[in-house]
Amino acid sequence: MDKHDLKKEIAKLVMQELKTSGLLINEYNKVPVSVSARHLHLCKEDLEALFGKGYELTVEKEISQPGQYAAKEKVTLITDKGKIENIRVLGPLRNKTQIELTKSEARTLGLNLEVRNSGDLANTSGVTIKGPKGSIELKEGVIIADRHIHMTPEDAENYDVKNGQKVSVVVNGKKGGVLSNVTIRVNPRYKLDFHIDTDDANAFLIQNGDLLELVK
Amino acid sequence: MDKHDLKKEIAKLVMQELKTSGLLINEYNKVPVSVSARHLHLCKEDLEALFGKGYELTVEKEISQPGQYAAKEKVTLITDKGKIENIRVLGPLRNKTQIELTKSEARTLGLNLEVRNSGDLANTSGVTIKGPKGSIELKEGVIIADRHIHMTPEDAENYDVKNGQKVSVVVNGKKGGVLSNVTIRVNPRYKLDFHIDTDDANAFLIQNGDLLELVK
Repeated sequence: MDKHDLKKEIAKLVMQELKTSGLLINEYNKVPVSVSARHLHLCKEDLEALFGKGYELTVEKEISQPGQYAAKEKVTLITDKGKIENIRVLGPLRNKTQIELTKSEARTLGLNLEVRNSGDLANTSGVTIKGPKGSIELKEGVIIADRHIHMTPEDAENYDVKNGQKVSVVVNGKKGGVLSNVTIRVNPRYKLDFHIDTDDANAFLIQNGDLLELVK
Repeated sequence: MDKHDLKKEIAKLVMQELKTSGLLINEYNKVPVSVSARHLHLCKEDLEALFGKGYELTVEKEISQPGQYAAKEKVTLITDKGKIENIRVLGPLRNKTQIELTKSEARTLGLNLEVRNSGDLANTSGVTIKGPKGSIELKEGVIIADRHIHMTPEDAENYDVKNGQKVSVVVNGKKGGVLSNVTIRVNPRYKLDFHIDTDDANAFLIQNGDLLELVK
């Protein structure tokens, strides 16, 4: 047994002991929040069109989901109604370029965006993307991301929810309420995290890292 | 009986007839929405400091509450963190200057605003206001307005709510949910209207004029 496995084994035993002893409150109804600011994911072809042949993204900092990172690279979005500068690229690259904006940013660009799951891009809006080395006309791929909770299969068991299930999340405070239509997304590579956009964060006065109540 | 009174009398009789016949559904749980964009109310002293001695507001258009109007006049708000131009003045004048912003606008200005009822301004944030003829340092008066429903005493009876009562409003749709902590405001001069700010409208994908369900 190597050092890493030993640590995991000890952690597991401690957790078991705590659970058995009743010292650990099994509070499987709270989820931590990550507020997603506007951003885009690029495919290799679009990255090269915007930043140059053979270009590679530079990691700025890791973000909540394992393996994902905010890149140093930024682009500008342009429509005939307006533009938004400094849209950050998230890495790593994806098979298809996807831009995630809020309703308020959609207004700035005069776009009538649909609320979609990540990756569900058929017949969504397009936009002009401008990078330091060139521009592209994205035909589709601009969405308002749906509210969703990332979790592992173990989390799903603990919270008693299933992949794809719609749940609600309760927010307290002076502008509290309920966020409905929150999609559960289960994957062994995920880390427990409730993703909302900046419009939701501002409307409900939610801060990054807040613990909110999941209701079914 | 003059023409106006005659019309009112006929309308009243038709309504009575519809109610008696059961043809009219008494749906006292829906409220129409008015989305309030950022704005300010000025006292006479501040109006003159910003626009000049003896200045009077110009009506641009009437707004939902009787006697209230959007003025043509606009100002700029300035802090050491940022500025927002084109903040519209609403008329008529008030006893105390009050500025209503959203959380997202508060972020732009680096202000940590409180959610308050209109008029409840003690110990709220200040800001620099710049007009065409001068600037003032507002000591307090910048708030995030609480969610509220204007209604007449007759409406209050129909909806079975009281002045000051907190209710919730349900929103359907892909970014639906519940808006909590909505204050009922009753006054004979009011018109039935649910006032939310642009952050709430954007987060819930609510449009001006939407009919939403009030729940107690």
